[in-house]
Amino acid sequence: MKGKVLIAVADGIEELEAITIIDCLGRAGAGLTIASVQKQQITTCREVTITADCLIADCTGQVYDLIVLPGGMPGAESLSKSVKLVEMLKEQKNAGRLYAAICASPAIVFEHHGLLADKKATCYPAMADKLTNKEAINQRVVVDGNCITSQGPGTAFEFALKLVELLFGAQKSNELAAAMLVKRP
Amino acid sequence: MKGKVLIAVADGIEELEAITIIDCLGRAGAGLTIASVQKQQITTCREVTITADCLIADCTGQVYDLIVLPGGMPGAESLSKSVKLVEMLKEQKNAGRLYAAICASPAIVFEHHGLLADKKATCYPAMADKLTNKEAINQRVVVDGNCITSQGPGTAFEFALKLVELLFGAQKSNELAAAMLVKRP
Repeated sequence: MKGKVLIAVADGIEELEAITIIDCLGRAGAGLTIASVQKQQITTCREVTITADCLIADCTGQVYDLIVLPGGMPGAESLSKSVKLVEMLKEQKNAGRLYAAICASPAIVFEHHGLLADKKATCYPAMADKLTNKEAINQRVVVDGNCITSQGPGTAFEFALKLVELLFGAQKSNELAAAMLVKRP
Repeated sequence: MKGKVLIAVADGIEELEAITIIDCLGRAGAGLTIASVQKQQITTCREVTITADCLIADCTGQVYDLIVLPGGMPGAESLSKSVKLVEMLKEQKNAGRLYAAICASPAIVFEHHGLLADKKATCYPAMADKLTNKEAINQRVVVDGNCITSQGPGTAFEFALKLVELLFGAQKSNELAAAMLVKRP
């Protein structure tokens, strides 16, 4: 099946970004795995307690069509410190498979680990100075090859629907946007 | 403190609606209680496991500035079957305090229990025929006195920011919309 997706989480992730990604991709029919880089039960920025499906170590040897990171602080920093996750992201990039991040994570995870070396990207505006390539910094969602980035909670729907489009096609993404009552320009 | 908020949850609630409300109200400074009408750990529509702060029975005798319901099925039906929650909603309405619902819940909970008897409201479009008063059915967010209703996942931000405005003022709501990068007309 096309649509095997890993979403990585940690204490202090931005819950709205994580859940928007999960909701849209889940509705589209993706096979979602929510993997924690810490313990299985995590607490988000606004103190919502979520139990992940597994730990990142349990994902070893799996191949995902997409690996996606929510933002939020200190969540993004914890994602960045996961050796296992970063290794999987580097493999994902080099294999030409999709990898994506929103808000703090393009800056704190992707940029920090060289995953944007040849990519245009965007991130949360207050972190824009951390990105070397600022060419696309003002865009709400940026697709550059197999790397997809976005700005923050208010762009999460556009980001998630773009991920649906890339995995399942524009028609599915448009159907979802209509069913979910998303206003589009 | 103004801003004591109860958000009621159950298995099968729409996670994006619940989390958008929690995120926006949490950022605004509300004192949020996530109360389950079933067991404390619930599983949402897209199978995200969330642990509530408490059970609805633990909220007896508390006074909330706002009681708010996410939608989703069968979540809304379980909310509707909670005698304790319905009793609290009726008290809330009669006392002139804010009560709010989105998506399936205005139809399945509010309409069913007479909580829209003298109110204009909206709900998920596919459930529009369940509302007696259809005057405002095509609006994305409706405020009629102390009753606030909205349509679905794609209107959750507008709904949550309206709740922030009613509790904390338009300036706080506008600040949040800007910080969260929400596109507004």
